[in-house]
Amino acid sequence: MDRRSFLKKATLASGAAAATTLAAPAIAQDKRTLKLVTTWPKNFPGLGTGAQRMADRITAMTDGRLTVKLYGAGELVPPFECFDAVSTGTADMYHGAEYYWQGKHKAFNFFTAVPMGLTGNELDAWILNGGGQELWDELAAQFNIKPFMAGNTGVQMGGWFNKEINSLEDLKGLKMRMPGLGGEVLRRMGASAVALPGGEIFPSLQSGAIDATEWVGPWNDLAFGFYKITKFYYYPGFHEPGSGLSCGVNLDLFNSLSKADQAVVQNACMAENNFMYSEFNAKNGAALETLLNKHSVNLKQFPDEVFDAIGKVSEEVVAEVADTDELSKRIYDSYITARKNVGDWGRIAEQTYTLSRDRVLG
Amino acid sequence: MDRRSFLKKATLASGAAAATTLAAPAIAQDKRTLKLVTTWPKNFPGLGTGAQRMADRITAMTDGRLTVKLYGAGELVPPFECFDAVSTGTADMYHGAEYYWQGKHKAFNFFTAVPMGLTGNELDAWILNGGGQELWDELAAQFNIKPFMAGNTGVQMGGWFNKEINSLEDLKGLKMRMPGLGGEVLRRMGASAVALPGGEIFPSLQSGAIDATEWVGPWNDLAFGFYKITKFYYYPGFHEPGSGLSCGVNLDLFNSLSKADQAVVQNACMAENNFMYSEFNAKNGAALETLLNKHSVNLKQFPDEVFDAIGKVSEEVVAEVADTDELSKRIYDSYITARKNVGDWGRIAEQTYTLSRDRVLG
Repeated sequence: MDRRSFLKKATLASGAAAATTLAAPAIAQDKRTLKLVTTWPKNFPGLGTGAQRMADRITAMTDGRLTVKLYGAGELVPPFECFDAVSTGTADMYHGAEYYWQGKHKAFNFFTAVPMGLTGNELDAWILNGGGQELWDELAAQFNIKPFMAGNTGVQMGGWFNKEINSLEDLKGLKMRMPGLGGEVLRRMGASAVALPGGEIFPSLQSGAIDATEWVGPWNDLAFGFYKITKFYYYPGFHEPGSGLSCGVNLDLFNSLSKADQAVVQNACMAENNFMYSEFNAKNGAALETLLNKHSVNLKQFPDEVFDAIGKVSEEVVAEVADTDELSKRIYDSYITARKNVGDWGRIAEQTYTLSRDRVLG
Repeated sequence: MDRRSFLKKATLASGAAAATTLAAPAIAQDKRTLKLVTTWPKNFPGLGTGAQRMADRITAMTDGRLTVKLYGAGELVPPFECFDAVSTGTADMYHGAEYYWQGKHKAFNFFTAVPMGLTGNELDAWILNGGGQELWDELAAQFNIKPFMAGNTGVQMGGWFNKEINSLEDLKGLKMRMPGLGGEVLRRMGASAVALPGGEIFPSLQSGAIDATEWVGPWNDLAFGFYKITKFYYYPGFHEPGSGLSCGVNLDLFNSLSKADQAVVQNACMAENNFMYSEFNAKNGAALETLLNKHSVNLKQFPDEVFDAIGKVSEEVVAEVADTDELSKRIYDSYITARKNVGDWGRIAEQTYTLSRDRVLG
């Protein structure tokens, strides 16, 4: 997915912010409204609804003393300008994904997802218990922003293709919609990667302007109806193995909040981080079943040869981000250390357990 | 792990509650202190420190208007009596694990972990987005308790053995420390399962009174020093594939709280749920490396034949819980549906991605 996708949809979205603002006289003083800008259309499933829930958590916990008013993509500022709006104080906070700010600093990619990078659980482990938050704070503070993790999509799918991908040859000349670092990887594989807005994907796939597209996962992909055009649905996605969504707060504003209100914001983000990941995991499963059983989608795994070649190029593309500056190098090193450390544990834990359970359940 | 393990350790624990109670005149009215009893010694790594963080989140977010005072296991009531204490109002809330209340109702097992059951992510998906919370509310309300998920250990290890486990024969007559439903599974495999308190495990293993033990995972197991006695460390644990920790609040008390304070409690639990899981994932990885590289532990995977036979018996033992009553049947059915649904997605997503990434990284 990418930012521009949502700009198009933003105008279609209806306003339905459900702010809970019961008056509470005893704590009514210092009441203020915080402007939350988002890179998603209001109530866009998963991402937009998650941003709204995060806003509502803050409003509810403070009984409206801090009322967070959500602006969908394009309502107050265009989605790509959320970062600048919060940095300068035009808005108080954003909900988005850090890789959208890679034009500001390439190292922001690590705080959403990078090809061959961390899964959702691994990202949380790095951010909360592996030094990631401190590095992120250092990076974002340069732009007057205090960042928090506030959601995760889980592993994204590899995408929809109008033909089978049986070898590396099949990637050559392939016109695929894939933004960011993943797009750069595909270009090095001989494909032609483009970053179309969401609303243009379906017609482009239909007309043959593109041969393939990635979006998010079964829950969101089902809604877009790609299965009506092509039946080849590939996994796993190499490009976004657990995309973290983030909340950035204007740093001056954050520092002006009481310790209690800072804790409210922090806990609201962390709670939504837990909730959204669980929602994607629950709803992707049901949507995948619908795609396979009702829409006869042909679910296919990338051949090892193809995935492994893409993986090796991914490693090169991501490593090059470390060359940006000294901070990027430290972030890259910390991220790779977490991948080794938490990844080693995951292999022993979740991976072996689920493989073994699969065998038992047949 | 089990409850009694902590009772022994509780007396060793020092009191170190770090309650943040800055006075805030404007909202100082209705200030109250909530008694939190826990099944863990104060500051027991991971579990006790998580309970303390959850308490501190509530205290911090309300600026001390709700001050949560934590009592370690045995300080106010014995660990096994936390449930009754909160049910009757002797205490206001507990932090523990629901399977400790299986004497009250066997269906509580599903809200911590059952053999061959849900991983941490799957449990969250079921609880938060698969109907689990509603069923849990119904079950716990019978005991005047409002429950929340508030932590997860991730997949636990299979345990420490004084000999290699090469076949089902090796389980026959084996004396292993394993509480709960997992213990029942082992008994049906011909082993002799016992539920020793944590403090008795090391000497029992040393004297030969037991041949094997499970505890939690590398982070906690390293601290107990089992590697000094035996080097055979098996994975994966079939018995607790993602143990959820819980916070139960006296239902009358919870209903008496304002909507805002209810939201504070709920979000504090959900935030801690996210944090603790990430902490276990981060620290287990580092501890496993220490066990393997510094203490020359022999990490071994159960042979497929052994795991699969244990798995099939696990399915029988868990299915029998559904026979308890009509509510147990609904909980079991919902749980098994979630395992199929979310599990199918996990196979496509995290499992295939991490396997593929492993191949690329070598």
